[in-house]
Amino acid sequence: MFDFEFHNPTKIVFGRQTVARLDTLVPANARVLVLYGGGSAQKNGTLDEVLGALGSREIQQFGGIEANPTYETLMRAVELIREQKLDFLLAVGGGSVIDGTKFVAAAVAYQGEPWEILETYGAKVTQALPFGSVLTLPATGSEMNNGGVVTRKSTQSKLPFRSPHVFPQFSILDPDKTLTLPPRQLANGVADAFTHVVEQYLTYPVEGRVQDRFAEGLLQTLVEIGPKVLNDPDDDVRANLMWVATLALNGLVGAGVPQDWSTHMIGHELTAGYGIDHARTLAVVLPANLQIRRESKRRKLLQYAERVWHITEGSEEQRIDAAIERTRSFFESLDIRTRLHDYDIGADAIDALIAQLEAHGMTQLGEGKDVTPDVSRRILEASL
Amino acid sequence: MFDFEFHNPTKIVFGRQTVARLDTLVPANARVLVLYGGGSAQKNGTLDEVLGALGSREIQQFGGIEANPTYETLMRAVELIREQKLDFLLAVGGGSVIDGTKFVAAAVAYQGEPWEILETYGAKVTQALPFGSVLTLPATGSEMNNGGVVTRKSTQSKLPFRSPHVFPQFSILDPDKTLTLPPRQLANGVADAFTHVVEQYLTYPVEGRVQDRFAEGLLQTLVEIGPKVLNDPDDDVRANLMWVATLALNGLVGAGVPQDWSTHMIGHELTAGYGIDHARTLAVVLPANLQIRRESKRRKLLQYAERVWHITEGSEEQRIDAAIERTRSFFESLDIRTRLHDYDIGADAIDALIAQLEAHGMTQLGEGKDVTPDVSRRILEASL
Repeated sequence: MFDFEFHNPTKIVFGRQTVARLDTLVPANARVLVLYGGGSAQKNGTLDEVLGALGSREIQQFGGIEANPTYETLMRAVELIREQKLDFLLAVGGGSVIDGTKFVAAAVAYQGEPWEILETYGAKVTQALPFGSVLTLPATGSEMNNGGVVTRKSTQSKLPFRSPHVFPQFSILDPDKTLTLPPRQLANGVADAFTHVVEQYLTYPVEGRVQDRFAEGLLQTLVEIGPKVLNDPDDDVRANLMWVATLALNGLVGAGVPQDWSTHMIGHELTAGYGIDHARTLAVVLPANLQIRRESKRRKLLQYAERVWHITEGSEEQRIDAAIERTRSFFESLDIRTRLHDYDIGADAIDALIAQLEAHGMTQLGEGKDVTPDVSRRILEASL
Repeated sequence: MFDFEFHNPTKIVFGRQTVARLDTLVPANARVLVLYGGGSAQKNGTLDEVLGALGSREIQQFGGIEANPTYETLMRAVELIREQKLDFLLAVGGGSVIDGTKFVAAAVAYQGEPWEILETYGAKVTQALPFGSVLTLPATGSEMNNGGVVTRKSTQSKLPFRSPHVFPQFSILDPDKTLTLPPRQLANGVADAFTHVVEQYLTYPVEGRVQDRFAEGLLQTLVEIGPKVLNDPDDDVRANLMWVATLALNGLVGAGVPQDWSTHMIGHELTAGYGIDHARTLAVVLPANLQIRRESKRRKLLQYAERVWHITEGSEEQRIDAAIERTRSFFESLDIRTRLHDYDIGADAIDALIAQLEAHGMTQLGEGKDVTPDVSRRILEASL
C-alpha cells in the first residue's frame, strides 16, 4: 500500500425530508448565494423548499449553470458575489452545479485571473468561500470531495482542479430528490460512479486490500442496482445509488493506491468537442482503454473479472476479454451506447482530439504515466 | 437504509516515517501535553521521536495511562492541564491512550463533575481541547472516531461516551510502529477490529448494500491477514491491519444501518470485573451471542456465512452453525481463548456480572433492544 493522507471534513446529512436541516447547517447571519442549473430545481419544487428552509437570511439566486459548467457563466456569479458581498454559497443540483460552485468559491477570493485555478490544477488556491450543497443527481461524487471540472467555451477546454479549500461544509442527500430525474440522467449517474471506482481500482496491485474490497463492493452494488435504476427505482435503489455515487469519489477507495483517470481525461475532450454527456464519454472510452492497456492492468483485470463479474472459467485472456465485454454490456444495458460511431464520430475526428489532449498537457496519463498521445490515439481508434 | 449523518473530520496521515509531520500538524505556539501509556512508547523510541518532532514547543508529559484508562488516572491529567494552562493534547499509544485523551480533552472544559460525561454518554459535552494522536497499536479505531471508554476503579464501572467535540484533529498511522508489538496485542487488535465490524453488520437487513459490502470487505481482509499477523507480519500485513482497524470503527460501515454493541457491553463487565483484555472478552461473548440470538439475526447470519466464509452447503441451520464455528475458530487461531472457563470464570460469576450490567443501565442492549438481563444471562451461560 502507498503512503497517503485522507481528510474529508464534509458532513453528510442523508435521508428523506432533510432539506429543512439547512436552517441549522447554514449560519444564521449568512448572506447566501443559491446556485442552480437549468431550471429543474425550480420546476420540481426543490428550489422553493431550499429558499423556505433558509428563512429570513439574505438570499440571492444564480441559475443557469450548464451541464458542463462554463468559466464564462461562473465568472458572472463571481461578479455578483463581489458586488453583493455575499459570504456563503449553496449549490442546489448535481455535480455540475456543485463543481461550478467550488470554482466560484475559490475564484471570488483569488488574486489574479481565476482561469489560472484550472491551469494550475488548483495549486494556487489558498482560500475559498464556505459552501454547502443540496444534491439532486447522484453521479459525480462532487458533494463529498474537493475537486471540480470547468469548461472554457472560448477555447473548448475542460479542465479539472482540486484544493483542500473546496470541500463542501455539508451536503444534503435526500434520495427522494431523484424521483423526478429522467432515466437518462439516472443511467448516466450509474455509469459515472462505476467509472470513478474503476479509475481508482483497475491499475496494478499494491496490496491495498481494503481499498480493493471497498471498490469491488461499490462496483458489485452498481451492478446489482443498475438494471433497477431505469425500470424500478424504488426507495432501496434510490438510496443506494445516492450513497454509492458519493462513496465512489470521496477519496476513500483511492487512498493509498495508484489511480488512472485517463478515461476521464480522454472523455473530457469528447465532451468539450462534441457535447456528449460526460458519463457517456466514459462508457465509450473505458472498454477500449481496458482493452488497449490489458497488459499493464493484467493482474487487476483478472481480479476484477473474478470478484466483480464472477468469471472464473477460461484462460487469462478469455477472462479478461469476458470482463471487458461485461463492462461494455453493463453500460449498454443502461441504454448508454459505447462506440464513437453511435455518436456520429468517425476516425477523422481523432487527430483533433489528440491535438486537444496535447494542448491541455494530457500527454502522460494513467497510473504509469504511459498513456501518451499515441496510446490515447489507439484507445480512441478502439472506441470507434 | 436508515437515514443518517456522517461526519468525520479527522485527518489521517498514513505511512512510514510520518511522525516528523507533527511539526506541521500541531500549532506552532501550542502548549502541548503528550499523553502515553505504560512505558512502551518510551522504550521503543516513539516518545523521543514525538518530542523531537514537536521541537521547541512548550511540552509536558503524562505517562501511565492504563490499558483500560481509569477516571482516577485521567483526572490527574486534567489537573495538570488546568494548572499548566496547556492547550493541545497529543495521544501517543493505542486505543486506551486515545480514549483517555478524549475524556481528558472533554473533562478539562467540563462544568461540573466530569464523571457525568460517562453517565450521560457524552451528551453534556459542549467543548473540548483540540488533540491529535500518534497510533502505535491498531485495534480500537479510536484514532478516527469520536468515542471513548473509561473505567472507574472505585465502582468497577467501564462506560462509553461519544461527542462530536472529541474527534482527533489528526492521527498519524505509521505501520512500522507496530513492529515492536507483542503477538498478544496484535492478535487482540485483529479480534477487536473484527468484532467492531460484526457489531455494525450482523443485525438485520435494511438494504444498506454498500455498508454490507464494506463490512464484508473488512472482515474478509481480517480473515486473510489474521494468520500472518502472528507469524509473518510483513509490510503488507502491518499496513492493512492498521487501516482495517481504523475503518472498522470510523462511522462508515455503521452509517444508515442498525447496530448491536451488546457483545461490547457484556464484555466490558468482564474486563471491569476480571481484568480480561478487552478483545478477549469480545472473542468470548461474540460466538455465544450469535448463537443465542440466531433467530433475530438469521438473514444476516446467512449472508455472513456465504460472503465472508463462503459457506453455501447445507441447511440454513447448518450454515449458521458453521459460520459461528468459523468465527470461534478464527479467534482461537489467533491464540485467543473463547470460553469463560479458559479465564477461570465459572457459572457462579454470572449473577454478579448481570447485576453490574443492570447497575450500568445495560438492560436493553442490541439492535432490537431485546437483550435484556435475562438474554445477557443466557449469552454468558453459553460462553462458559
